[in-house]
Parts: sequence; structure tokens; C-alpha cells
Amino acid sequence: MEVSGTETKLPWTVTVLSLFPEMFPGPLNYSLAGQALNKGIWKVNSVDIRAFACDKHRSVDDMPFGGGFGMVMRPDVIDIAIRTIHRVGSLIYLTPRGRLLDQEKVRSLSKEQRITILCGHFEGVDQRVLDAHDVEEVSIGDFVLSGGEIAALVLIDAVVRLLPGVIGKKESLIEESFELKLLEYPHYTRPKNWEGREVPKVLVSGHHEKIRTWRKCQAENITKVRRPDLWRQYVVAKNEED
Amino acid sequence: MEVSGTETKLPWTVTVLSLFPEMFPGPLNYSLAGQALNKGIWKVNSVDIRAFACDKHRSVDDMPFGGGFGMVMRPDVIDIAIRTIHRVGSLIYLTPRGRLLDQEKVRSLSKEQRITILCGHFEGVDQRVLDAHDVEEVSIGDFVLSGGEIAALVLIDAVVRLLPGVIGKKESLIEESFELKLLEYPHYTRPKNWEGREVPKVLVSGHHEKIRTWRKCQAENITKVRRPDLWRQYVVAKNEED
Repeated sequence: MEVSGTETKLPWTVTVLSLFPEMFPGPLNYSLAGQALNKGIWKVNSVDIRAFACDKHRSVDDMPFGGGFGMVMRPDVIDIAIRTIHRVGSLIYLTPRGRLLDQEKVRSLSKEQRITILCGHFEGVDQRVLDAHDVEEVSIGDFVLSGGEIAALVLIDAVVRLLPGVIGKKESLIEESFELKLLEYPHYTRPKNWEGREVPKVLVSGHHEKIRTWRKCQAENITKVRRPDLWRQYVVAKNEED
Repeated sequence: MEVSGTETKLPWTVTVLSLFPEMFPGPLNYSLAGQALNKGIWKVNSVDIRAFACDKHRSVDDMPFGGGFGMVMRPDVIDIAIRTIHRVGSLIYLTPRGRLLDQEKVRSLSKEQRITILCGHFEGVDQRVLDAHDVEEVSIGDFVLSGGEIAALVLIDAVVRLLPGVIGKKESLIEESFELKLLEYPHYTRPKNWEGREVPKVLVSGHHEKIRTWRKCQAENITKVRRPDLWRQYVVAKNEED
């Protein structure tokens, strides 16, 4: 664990309840998250839900009441799993039924010291156990995954980036620009002339104000075209400022 | 490879250009995607972008023109990587600047036989190489990840679910309900009485019509509360139908 000054900081800790605990940390062993893991900035405990199945077949799911396709994860099994880990902090269930994940939510989770993520499979989890444990339902988007694990990797990676010591302070400032709800302007680097394509002249002009204006204009245009939903929010927010 | 009848079907193939090729298939070795991988229904080729760096430091990034924090991935390096793989089908760059991924896009990618995914790092990729290769920019949501790899895992998992032979035909029908743009109704399974919590009476009534109505009502209510954006689209679509 990294020690800053004389103070030892506890790692940000995520407990994952999953039918595939071997998926973690998986890809989070590499790149930025992997470096932070090695430094002891965060850690993951993955817990096998199947270990809490109580019948001889170790079944974790059963048929849905009221009919329909697919299986539903049993409330009693999930309940024992949640009780056993002595949950502290937010308990998040990743499901397309949830509220959409955004950077604000990511930031708020990065400020908790511990969180728990429940990964569902099949048709989902019995609603009663979600209600009983005040589980927060979160969705990463309007598409269907085979289970909650890959969505959990997304959530963890997004949070880990924001933990102190993971990226430089300068980069964290860029973060703030997300609050403006505009997509980013395009980026250019060397070579200046690549296969006959020049970088936009303004970027090599040295006029900082012109560069700022150009970038803002590019960001506004791309947002208008690709994300009319964000554009509308931006216009409303801007009008309120004025 | 699985043979159906006398015809051998080529696997759905995704080529991933990444600075961390060892991340693939990673978590996609497990669960539904892992079974389909073993059956030869899909495969992934991961290609190390750094192998195409041409200077002695094997650098893949450089400073942004016009100033700013972070580094930008060089157009020349990415260009050689793309040319070398002899791209066939869609070439997708995962970035928060892209159009939002939805189930319709996932379905359309599942119908291509080959796709390529470019995973960025740092501040992103030089815009000229994206323009030159007609790269499609796709975002999985309004949050920031440390790189494109985890987003690529999301996209691949979502596509693999839809490939023929991965889930049963019955389950695929459920898929269609996503077109209705409503969140799902809650699920319940055994035990019928769990810690004093009964499943909703209607679900054990045997009245299929009442169950259908109850579920639709639940789906509408949860959508109204959690996703006013989807709710508005649903109301508009419903009015057009009438």
C-alpha cells in the first residue's frame, strides 16, 4: 500500500457478488486500474453467490411467478450473500431497469470508502430482496448484456480513475469539463502534415483565445449533431446562466 | 467449430486494436460468451497497436496541437495498424464523443460477419485518422473510462448474446420487447413467501390477461419514474400508433 506522508490511506474497496467471481479483477489488472491496484489505491473482493445456495443442487435461480421465459435469481440465496459480507456503503445492482450511470454518480461512488456491486444473470433478481436491502438499481445503457459482471468492470474502472493518486491533478481538471455536458472537441497531434492532411491552422497559430473559441465551437457542433439530448440540456443551462 | 447440418458457419469475428491486447477475451472467456467462444460461434483477434510504432521509443502518442493536458494517439501509428489488419466491415472507435450505443446498433453489428474495434487511450486519437478511415465513433455512456478496452468488452458481450446458437430462440423473443422502450417489470421466484414478503397476488392467480396488464402497468410506472427520456419516446410512439 502506498503511504503518503505518515498517513496510511485505506484502499477504496469494492465487493462484487457474482456467479463468476473469477472475472475480477480481470482486465482491471492492466493499464491505469492495474497500476492503481498494485499501488494499493483500491481493491476488489469477489464473492461467489453460488456458495450461498442451500439446496443439494446449489441452485441460485428458479422459474418466474406469473410465467415467462428465463429464470430469476432467488431472494433467499442473494439475501444470505448480502448478509454475510457485512455490507458497508452503497449496494448497487446493475440492470437495464436502473437509473442511467453518469459521471456525477461515478464521482459520488469514488467518495465512498466501500461499495458493493451485485451482478445478476438470467432474467434478473427477485424484486423482494432488492427492496429488503435498499439496493440501488443502476444501468450503464440501453443494451442487454449476458450478466452484470462486464457492467461492473465499467463502473469500477470509471471510479478508479477518479481516486486520488490514479491520474495527475492536471488531468482531473479536464474531468470538470464533463459537467458542461458537451462532447469533446477533436484532438490532433504530430505529424503536423499527415498524408496530405494538415492539422487545423488555428491550432498551430499560438492564439490561445482563438484556439479556445474554435474548440468550443467544435464541441458545440458535434454535440448538436450527435447528441441532441445533451444539446438541449446545454442550451437550457446556458440560458439560465445568462 | 459447430456444424449445423452440412453447412459450416464462419464465426463472428471481432478484431480489436489495443495497447492492451492481453485484455481479450479476458472476462469473455466465462459465462455465455465463453461457452459461445468454445463452440466457435465467435472469435476475437487482438492486435497490439504498439507493434506499429515506428520510432525507437515505440511511442504511440504525442502532445496535442493547440495545447491542453494529456496525450493524443498518433495518426500514422493507428493508420498502419488499420491497414495491416485488412479491415472488413464496420470500424468502431469507442469514445464518449460518439453516438450512444443502443440495442438496435448492437443488433446491426451482430449481423455483420466481421467488425473492428479501435480502443483509445490518453486524451483520444488524432481526428485525421478517424476521418481518413471512415471510423464510426460510438459511446457506451456519459462517463469516462481509462481506455476503450472495457467499453469494447461491453460491446462484444452484447453482440455475442445475439448470435445464432448463443441463447435459445424463446429468450431472443424477449429481446424484441426492448423495442417498446419500456424498462422491464419486476421479477419474482420461489419461495412464494420469503421472510414475510409475499409475491404479488396477481402473479399466482393464473389469470394470464391480468398478469399481462399488471406487468405492463409496472413497466410503465418504473419507466416514468426512472427514465423520463424513454417515457416521452414511448408516449409519442403510442400516440402515433393510435
